[in-house]
Amino acid sequence: MTVSFKGKSSRRAFLKGTLAAGGTLAGATLAKAEGADPLITEKQPWAQGLGDGVDATPYGLPIKYEDDVIRRNVEWLTADTISSINFSPIHALDGTITPQGCAFERHHSGAIELKKEDYRLMINGLVDQPLVFTYEDLERFPRVNHTFFLECAANTGMEWAGAQLNGAQFTHGMIHNMEYTGVTLRTLLEEAGLDAAGDLKDKWVYVEGADASSNGRSIPMDKALDDCMIAFKANGEALRMEHGYPVRLVVPGWEGNMWVKWIRRIEVTDQAVQSREETSKYTDTLENGTSRKWTWVMDAKSVVTSPSPQAPIKHGKGPLVITGLAWSGRGAITRVDVSKDGGKTWETARLANPGQPMALTRFYLDTTWDGEEMFLQSRAMDETGYVQPTKTQLREVRGENSVYHNNCIQTWWVNANGEAENVEVS
Amino acid sequence: MTVSFKGKSSRRAFLKGTLAAGGTLAGATLAKAEGADPLITEKQPWAQGLGDGVDATPYGLPIKYEDDVIRRNVEWLTADTISSINFSPIHALDGTITPQGCAFERHHSGAIELKKEDYRLMINGLVDQPLVFTYEDLERFPRVNHTFFLECAANTGMEWAGAQLNGAQFTHGMIHNMEYTGVTLRTLLEEAGLDAAGDLKDKWVYVEGADASSNGRSIPMDKALDDCMIAFKANGEALRMEHGYPVRLVVPGWEGNMWVKWIRRIEVTDQAVQSREETSKYTDTLENGTSRKWTWVMDAKSVVTSPSPQAPIKHGKGPLVITGLAWSGRGAITRVDVSKDGGKTWETARLANPGQPMALTRFYLDTTWDGEEMFLQSRAMDETGYVQPTKTQLREVRGENSVYHNNCIQTWWVNANGEAENVEVS
Repeated sequence: MTVSFKGKSSRRAFLKGTLAAGGTLAGATLAKAEGADPLITEKQPWAQGLGDGVDATPYGLPIKYEDDVIRRNVEWLTADTISSINFSPIHALDGTITPQGCAFERHHSGAIELKKEDYRLMINGLVDQPLVFTYEDLERFPRVNHTFFLECAANTGMEWAGAQLNGAQFTHGMIHNMEYTGVTLRTLLEEAGLDAAGDLKDKWVYVEGADASSNGRSIPMDKALDDCMIAFKANGEALRMEHGYPVRLVVPGWEGNMWVKWIRRIEVTDQAVQSREETSKYTDTLENGTSRKWTWVMDAKSVVTSPSPQAPIKHGKGPLVITGLAWSGRGAITRVDVSKDGGKTWETARLANPGQPMALTRFYLDTTWDGEEMFLQSRAMDETGYVQPTKTQLREVRGENSVYHNNCIQTWWVNANGEAENVEVS
Repeated sequence: MTVSFKGKSSRRAFLKGTLAAGGTLAGATLAKAEGADPLITEKQPWAQGLGDGVDATPYGLPIKYEDDVIRRNVEWLTADTISSINFSPIHALDGTITPQGCAFERHHSGAIELKKEDYRLMINGLVDQPLVFTYEDLERFPRVNHTFFLECAANTGMEWAGAQLNGAQFTHGMIHNMEYTGVTLRTLLEEAGLDAAGDLKDKWVYVEGADASSNGRSIPMDKALDDCMIAFKANGEALRMEHGYPVRLVVPGWEGNMWVKWIRRIEVTDQAVQSREETSKYTDTLENGTSRKWTWVMDAKSVVTSPSPQAPIKHGKGPLVITGLAWSGRGAITRVDVSKDGGKTWETARLANPGQPMALTRFYLDTTWDGEEMFLQSRAMDETGYVQPTKTQLREVRGENSVYHNNCIQTWWVNANGEAENVEVS
């Protein structure tokens, strides 16, 4: 097995910074009540006085001790923060829901403030009756609720050329998973009427947002009528500004760029628009310089979120929970395997709950760590039988020129101190 | 049908305040693209400049236009905010997940700040080996993920004596619904060993928190071993301070007071402790002055969240979405009916998704409003066949002396202007 590191010194410096903030590497075993622990035997200050009243935070934030669980930008990745990306702190989360407050952002011309009162959604093009909806109009149509992941097509994109970014947040954090409430796109298209479009098989919708970039994308009519949603709530409450308040498009299982935020227009067309965002961007450049286009679906993928570079093992040998996330744009995750030896042998992980279509699935491997180094990997399988590929397999087909659709198996090298690092094995 | 109002003038004043802030009652129909709407035809400021960059909010909050979607206290309800309650803004939410930031709070001696490093959990009493766990220890046991509602036993408690509080937030907002991650209580009890307890049938656990009130409660061993969780995450991230950071007990389907926050001790006992919190409080006083005790399970219940006093109909006649929440501590919701005429006739609502055990279920009735007044009610049924009772039925059995376990059918009177008010019908 060959192990390769990239940018080793800078990542190590980063790792040390993390540990200094996060605690020591001193071992701990499953504690027993031996000897006096003043935190048990003595009355503590918080058990004596009164705490905060219920009007302290009408809308609450995380406690100050969790102030490292935040979205993070990678400064060198793009020239400015307007067109840049930040990343969800998936290394520090558990379960499957991503809170809106730390769900990653990506904008093309920044996040805009748009009041519900100023919101309009136009449907035009090959429809029987062009329509304009206010926000209040949208609330009058039958609503649906569904939990879906949104993954940026460029998630893990820096890893094509080697092990670049040292943390699950940075390698895999362009993803979030929320419960959406809204109206199906089908409902609104049928309200406008599709008889004028004729045969729907070869028709498209072109969707654009109200921000300056407009971020237009073409979506085949089949998908538009299948499961797309015009959503106005996420995790029960209004969308956040950075996620498209007041209304965004939801395109289950497909790349995040198509989930147009601040959606203002849906045009029914007889061909794809071939917009900037689906030609010069969001196509996958191959080894020979040509590009794969219309690579909409996010293939099955997984990552170990803990242990990982930002979430080292601090407790020493013994019982260890290895956990991570798996997802597929083609349906439900059916199985996740975990390897401790870089893919030579595999153990089947426990799914916290049965996989749901196009939603994050949490997996756990309840194991024992012997204190030896590990090359941790996870491998997802979905209901179509698709198996997440290795980086080598992916490169054989797609080369290293793309930044999109890298769903390869990720490797974390966990050393004898429990520290983890992003590496490649082959 | 008799309709009774309580505190009418003050509630009307409150309602007017809501409308002044929320908009006009002018009718709106499903808009069509007739004539020029400058919000469609003119380029808008937000489509011209750059918006916020991705480093604007490392941990985000709702957009300023949603600043009325907050937890609210009712000042006259209790003497101080330390031991008081605030309410989830369920009238403004949709879907089923409650964001932690606006999930209701109730404390007995205020919300305390407790670092993970200072956290200890003791298991003692009739166990083979008393144990003390640190936070890090807890993370080494196999974890589970489940979504459950938490309802305060006193939710809707002010309504025993009549229609008191004018809004779903205030009548039914002592509830939230989150995805919890943690370790089963069974796992930890088995780690300590239960052989010493002998026959588990008649055993109990006594649980208490690290705050000054300690808020001790006795839980039968059957329940403790069935589905209780020691949770450290909610909706993917750490529990908020006000919800028990870093660790709380989860007691699915049972009254919220038993979900001890900042849990510090679990004692295995051979009888219930008969603590203050389960004798003088959290027992249901009957008409004759005696009390029902051990009323742990939250019976099936539902409420229409919109339209409701804080969420009036603003769009006039025509298509109307009536929506609300239903839940049962005995299992999954199987059906919800909605009445527009105070219970004379019923229509079966659409469940957004199949009911999940002991979790909130969202229901919708997609209907048409003729502009006439309505007496809106909802009625939940669960998988045991239990049907949510009317207020009259509940009073016949339980009188009006209790503040706990009021799961009666709620009525909103919606007038011809679309304004709603809390009323009783009989």
